[in-house]
Amino acid sequence: MSLTVWANHELRPGARELFYDSLARLGCRVIQSAKSSRSVLTEGESDPALAEADIAYGQPPLRDAVANPKLRWIALSTAGYARYDNDGFRAAMRARGTVVTNASSVFAGPCAEHALAMMMCFTRELPRYILNKAGPREWNYAEGRYSLETLAGKTVVILGYGAIGQRLNGLLAPFRCRVIGVRRQPRGDEEIEVVPEAEVATVLPLADHIVNCLPDTPASPRFCGGAFFAQMRRGACFYNIGRGSTVDHAALLRALQGGQVAGAFLDALDPEPLPPEHPLWAEPRCQITPHLAGGHRAQDESLVRHFTGNVQRFIGGLPLLDRVI
Amino acid sequence: MSLTVWANHELRPGARELFYDSLARLGCRVIQSAKSSRSVLTEGESDPALAEADIAYGQPPLRDAVANPKLRWIALSTAGYARYDNDGFRAAMRARGTVVTNASSVFAGPCAEHALAMMMCFTRELPRYILNKAGPREWNYAEGRYSLETLAGKTVVILGYGAIGQRLNGLLAPFRCRVIGVRRQPRGDEEIEVVPEAEVATVLPLADHIVNCLPDTPASPRFCGGAFFAQMRRGACFYNIGRGSTVDHAALLRALQGGQVAGAFLDALDPEPLPPEHPLWAEPRCQITPHLAGGHRAQDESLVRHFTGNVQRFIGGLPLLDRVI
Repeated sequence: MSLTVWANHELRPGARELFYDSLARLGCRVIQSAKSSRSVLTEGESDPALAEADIAYGQPPLRDAVANPKLRWIALSTAGYARYDNDGFRAAMRARGTVVTNASSVFAGPCAEHALAMMMCFTRELPRYILNKAGPREWNYAEGRYSLETLAGKTVVILGYGAIGQRLNGLLAPFRCRVIGVRRQPRGDEEIEVVPEAEVATVLPLADHIVNCLPDTPASPRFCGGAFFAQMRRGACFYNIGRGSTVDHAALLRALQGGQVAGAFLDALDPEPLPPEHPLWAEPRCQITPHLAGGHRAQDESLVRHFTGNVQRFIGGLPLLDRVI
Repeated sequence: MSLTVWANHELRPGARELFYDSLARLGCRVIQSAKSSRSVLTEGESDPALAEADIAYGQPPLRDAVANPKLRWIALSTAGYARYDNDGFRAAMRARGTVVTNASSVFAGPCAEHALAMMMCFTRELPRYILNKAGPREWNYAEGRYSLETLAGKTVVILGYGAIGQRLNGLLAPFRCRVIGVRRQPRGDEEIEVVPEAEVATVLPLADHIVNCLPDTPASPRFCGGAFFAQMRRGACFYNIGRGSTVDHAALLRALQGGQVAGAFLDALDPEPLPPEHPLWAEPRCQITPHLAGGHRAQDESLVRHFTGNVQRFIGGLPLLDRVI
């Protein structure tokens, strides 16, 4: 069986050769779309060559994916898949037996590490000392020691308890934190306490740290808004490694300014890029990384290995990893 | 048996009352030295009242500790105990059966968290983005993602593998790092690979991260010097939560400037406070916290609970926690 793989994800040199070599070794023909892009945050452009493909890798345009019945598998190169996460698309794919996977296991580890880095950075007040070094160079020994917190034994609420949340829970294990997950529909097989999104207000007052991993879904626009921040324990911290659209940033800014939220570390904003004049840049209780949480040096090689491993499974008729439809 | 406790450690309000109340409940008389100090980094001042004590808590002057044979137990309020760590003092205490404890289990957790915070902060390049927010407010998405590292699977060398190192090894467990300890004399019962200090050169080239927890001992002045940094793998990171005297800072600065050491995060300096004109403040690859690693909000309450728990053991004839002599 010779498979044709269409791809519109522009991989970096090194990973690109690994992609072609690995697929050639698996007997696949590759069509790299002329409209490829490295950014996966915008939808790919339409490309008639998709019609020849058995497998689409990257971010195929939704309409084209639906219009090409020959496609047997769509392998998304991201963890988020909001563009494809609707009943119409799901029904169309299921009706003709097209499988959809994402790359959540590639990004879960780095995202969880990024979240823990943010949490520890706040707990140990590193921003204050990084700015001190760039500024007054004070030696705040006597008072500084008593201002720091530890993470051990604290309560952490994770919004959107999926692959990232599970990995974060694993990283937190030695800290013996109380970890509470919030997800659209608890499955009952989670290894931690989990409440449904509708009951988030019951756990917000418990948390010292709230980590938002929510995807961009119509079900949760501005899930974290004024009421949400008001329900948090005063002085708790908020982190976003999910999507910016799930947060009402004006409400967050007010909560930071009033001290209700002691600190916010945001990797996902809305809009992105966040314009330089946006007031969150000026808020001292806020820190920002530019949508880096899933990134790491070997990201593209990991994506290729994840995809080609799944191609082997596909050829062998085995269940695919990270199947979402 | 009524015991007299002499103390020259100045606790903060709250912890102070807990100290007096707990000791009163244990039937102890407390003499708070008129020469008490909150800083534990300098030796306490001489106080004739020490002559009445069975137990000295804090940082009793070495000479006075030796000169008062009635003292049965010296409870140091720090983890480091370099002032007392010499053969003469050890022999004098052993000869008359005086026990010496430190407070390492109070500080090990916060120190290990601080070290991990530093490591994750560098791994996820947070200083760059904290300074970006305070400065140009760029949105370095496309390139930034590929510059980050992850901690998972990396090799970590811990210099001075004691209570802090063991706790750090525990925090690193979910990352599945290779952790190698270096200690004066490996005991053979460590849960990780350990090499003696004399063989440090064999493990330096392996490490992605080197965490210095070395105490201030005559055996290891400037243990981390020019040869040490040259033996590191180019581009590895160095952390110091031990004592500043164990590092040759001129050599470290040269190694940072030449890129041999990619980053240094230092909590212990020499001298302390580090003067504002010291070139380490100006080195962009270096970050500094002012001797905070062991600190946390509830530090003094933890110290009191640790000490009074040991007083109970002392009264009951049980072995004391954190005994060092």
